[in-house]
Amino acid sequence: MMKRIHTVLELKVDFTIGGGIMQSSNREMLRCFIYPESVAVIGASSNQEKIGFTIVKNLLNYGYRGKLYLVNPKETNILGFDVYHDIKSIKEDVDLVFIVTPAKIVPSIIEDCAERNVKGAIIVSSGFGEMGSEGKKIERDMVEKSRKSGMRILGPNSIGVISPKSRIPWALPLLPHHLYDEGDVAFISQSGGVTTTFSLMAGERNLKFKAVVHIGNESDLGVEDWIEYFGEEKGVRVIAVFIEGVKNGRRFMKVLKNVTPHKPICILKGGKTEEGSAAVLTHTGAISGSDDIYNAVFKQTGAIRADNIEELIDFVECFDRLSLPEGDRVIILTGSGGIGVLTADACVESGLKLPPIPEDIEKELENVLPQYWNGKRNILNPLDMTVGGSWGGVVKRYSTCMEIISNSKDVDIMIVCSSVAGNQIAKKFTRELINVRKKINKPFVLVWPPSGNGSLIEFKRELRNNGIVVFSDPYRAARSISCLVKYKKFLERN
Amino acid sequence: MMKRIHTVLELKVDFTIGGGIMQSSNREMLRCFIYPESVAVIGASSNQEKIGFTIVKNLLNYGYRGKLYLVNPKETNILGFDVYHDIKSIKEDVDLVFIVTPAKIVPSIIEDCAERNVKGAIIVSSGFGEMGSEGKKIERDMVEKSRKSGMRILGPNSIGVISPKSRIPWALPLLPHHLYDEGDVAFISQSGGVTTTFSLMAGERNLKFKAVVHIGNESDLGVEDWIEYFGEEKGVRVIAVFIEGVKNGRRFMKVLKNVTPHKPICILKGGKTEEGSAAVLTHTGAISGSDDIYNAVFKQTGAIRADNIEELIDFVECFDRLSLPEGDRVIILTGSGGIGVLTADACVESGLKLPPIPEDIEKELENVLPQYWNGKRNILNPLDMTVGGSWGGVVKRYSTCMEIISNSKDVDIMIVCSSVAGNQIAKKFTRELINVRKKINKPFVLVWPPSGNGSLIEFKRELRNNGIVVFSDPYRAARSISCLVKYKKFLERN
Repeated sequence: MMKRIHTVLELKVDFTIGGGIMQSSNREMLRCFIYPESVAVIGASSNQEKIGFTIVKNLLNYGYRGKLYLVNPKETNILGFDVYHDIKSIKEDVDLVFIVTPAKIVPSIIEDCAERNVKGAIIVSSGFGEMGSEGKKIERDMVEKSRKSGMRILGPNSIGVISPKSRIPWALPLLPHHLYDEGDVAFISQSGGVTTTFSLMAGERNLKFKAVVHIGNESDLGVEDWIEYFGEEKGVRVIAVFIEGVKNGRRFMKVLKNVTPHKPICILKGGKTEEGSAAVLTHTGAISGSDDIYNAVFKQTGAIRADNIEELIDFVECFDRLSLPEGDRVIILTGSGGIGVLTADACVESGLKLPPIPEDIEKELENVLPQYWNGKRNILNPLDMTVGGSWGGVVKRYSTCMEIISNSKDVDIMIVCSSVAGNQIAKKFTRELINVRKKINKPFVLVWPPSGNGSLIEFKRELRNNGIVVFSDPYRAARSISCLVKYKKFLERN
Repeated sequence: MMKRIHTVLELKVDFTIGGGIMQSSNREMLRCFIYPESVAVIGASSNQEKIGFTIVKNLLNYGYRGKLYLVNPKETNILGFDVYHDIKSIKEDVDLVFIVTPAKIVPSIIEDCAERNVKGAIIVSSGFGEMGSEGKKIERDMVEKSRKSGMRILGPNSIGVISPKSRIPWALPLLPHHLYDEGDVAFISQSGGVTTTFSLMAGERNLKFKAVVHIGNESDLGVEDWIEYFGEEKGVRVIAVFIEGVKNGRRFMKVLKNVTPHKPICILKGGKTEEGSAAVLTHTGAISGSDDIYNAVFKQTGAIRADNIEELIDFVECFDRLSLPEGDRVIILTGSGGIGVLTADACVESGLKLPPIPEDIEKELENVLPQYWNGKRNILNPLDMTVGGSWGGVVKRYSTCMEIISNSKDVDIMIVCSSVAGNQIAKKFTRELINVRKKINKPFVLVWPPSGNGSLIEFKRELRNNGIVVFSDPYRAARSISCLVKYKKFLERN
């Protein structure tokens, strides 16, 4: 047996982590999945149709900067790199292995890895617990073998991890551009499809990840381990979770309780209904459990529940970009009475308060509003500024009103409904909002419906890149703000 | 006083309407707003900042093909056209006038118009009922004067009408491209802001209008008149409505009852909450009324209620593009178990049924699914095809499963959840779906989340142009399908 030494990528880097001194051995054990200094792909392939090829290509394209070893007894050269016969042939330490071999040989591979002191294994292969009793047996065998050394397992049936800082890519053929940038959102998902869907949708919102983790069958590491990990990880601002069921309810609850006082956790739970639960059972073999119990757990622990994927990303976007409002008092600023009415409805239905315009700013606002206002209407909330006059004037009126309102101590957050359309004025409006955001000390969200020609997309991107949250519907804006308020109240109680 | 004759646009056209012989005088009276053979702009202006200029420019840009007269005693030439001193100076018949003069002179203008047998007036000017008792008086005066001749009024405080066939544009500075195409959606709105928002959002969905009508203050023509009109108008497939309140509840209900057996009516109602109602009172002077009553009315009359703007457009898109499903039995086809679970939850929560896969197609489906399925899992609903193997195979598997499922008499509608990403395969998938749609006789909706790089936008546009409904979230797909089912059941009862 020849040893084939892979030398090209032996660039050793120092992955400084945000959290400083590690606080638990569990945390240290999981770290190897996010910041591995060396990686081996067991089942690496030169066949472009195979996932063992995709992983290698992804590691190269994504720019993994640690040591990389390719392992496959049947291959000699993949993309110009030498291939090891097995993990035991690698003399250096390996932090993390990807395993993409057939299920039945995984336990013996894990045994070899444990002997070689590999810290973590991402098992991409399927054909385990989700396939019935035979697969479950292999899964148990594999975990038992890993326990001998304290090595940890992600999966099986996992597309792995996205870790922009250390350049660990997932095991999927696509790697869109926005996944290259490091951010402060952590996403943990039990479903591969939801992992991809959410990660790709994040690009539409210009959200960036600290990490994405697909936990797969959870033979070893479960959702609660990862929530705990990202709870302690500095630089993670918000944790998003998709689960269908949890295996260790008690620990899950304990972890949520520990993390929510420091970081918001937004959770989408599949299998709410009987039919949904039945589907969960089929595809992961997990039991999703009573939805009432989950609701109670989320309420008690301060975790925020989202009702669908769009809502999950709405909530995450708000927690990521906004400071928490001090309370639930919303002022609606609108250029259209009708949109103001719909926004007011949405706020009240979401449990938010619409106080009257505070007296101390009433006069100031009156001075900003168009002439014909004087003496004709009261200054009310929603504040309908109308969009009469020149567009330049309208844009200025928005920002001036926002400044005035943000100065009142009787307002906690603003919803700004834009009636601006047309490229030229949209550009001005975008600049003005970015400027005014720097001047004011209250959070706000913008409601700006799509304009039909797709032209607003670039302005919305610019706004988001400058920390401004944009929704296309008042309803979603109000729902999201109510989560911020709910979380703030939870923090005050705890 | 000189008569200034405007000759350039005197191209007389025949606006054949879909409905054939007109069925009521009310219908004939409203027709002049949508298909006027001659138009006068009273208050036309050469000042580009003024709405009296915008309207003229819009009529020219949009390509109005009837006779056009410009009226303003202070102007002589606007954009190269002669200007009339007043409406009485025009010797030819005028079907429709736009009025953009100050409120206080509108009654006398209406009087002149009535004398000249003008059929309809769009009053764009504001400063009427919404401004208090003085304005209300002017409004009453104006309506009284119009009644002398049977002339009808749209507004005041109305941005008017979009009528692609006859090229009547609204009174707004923007006229995006998608508003040039004639379609089969009619939109009636009490709010200018919601009119623009909805009309612009429609462009994102490739929805096209037969007409858009902003009813403004409803001094004369109300929402019920327009619902009745479009109810009878051939070529209108679905009627979308935004209201905050109705002035004549009895007639409103009667009209809904008459129209819903022939056409679906989707309604968004502002002012659901106390705070929302208060806002309605402020900006239109209308009373929005108890929300429970509206719910009862909608239920009894078979009108479909949407909860927010996005939902309104979701519902309209489904009614516009899909045939009604025969019943409530949904099969979910998915490439991801997790997405399948979320879709199942959404269906059940929306009141839809998820039957088991019908026996007559079970074997056929099994033959299409990947090898490792055999004997390992049951064929279930959601049908998780997984996305293993080549992408070409995955795409083919989608369409083959759709064909098989559509052949079963025990299925009414499909939700197809796409896990396809990446441009090349997305293109293939799009083509395949467009082809399979022609072959199958069951409605389906596609759930295809945004991919982050905006690349899917063009494929979604192509799908929509070929009559396929695309949602980005399973929740919205299920909500919308449940409306189709609800409406179908209503039709069966009536």
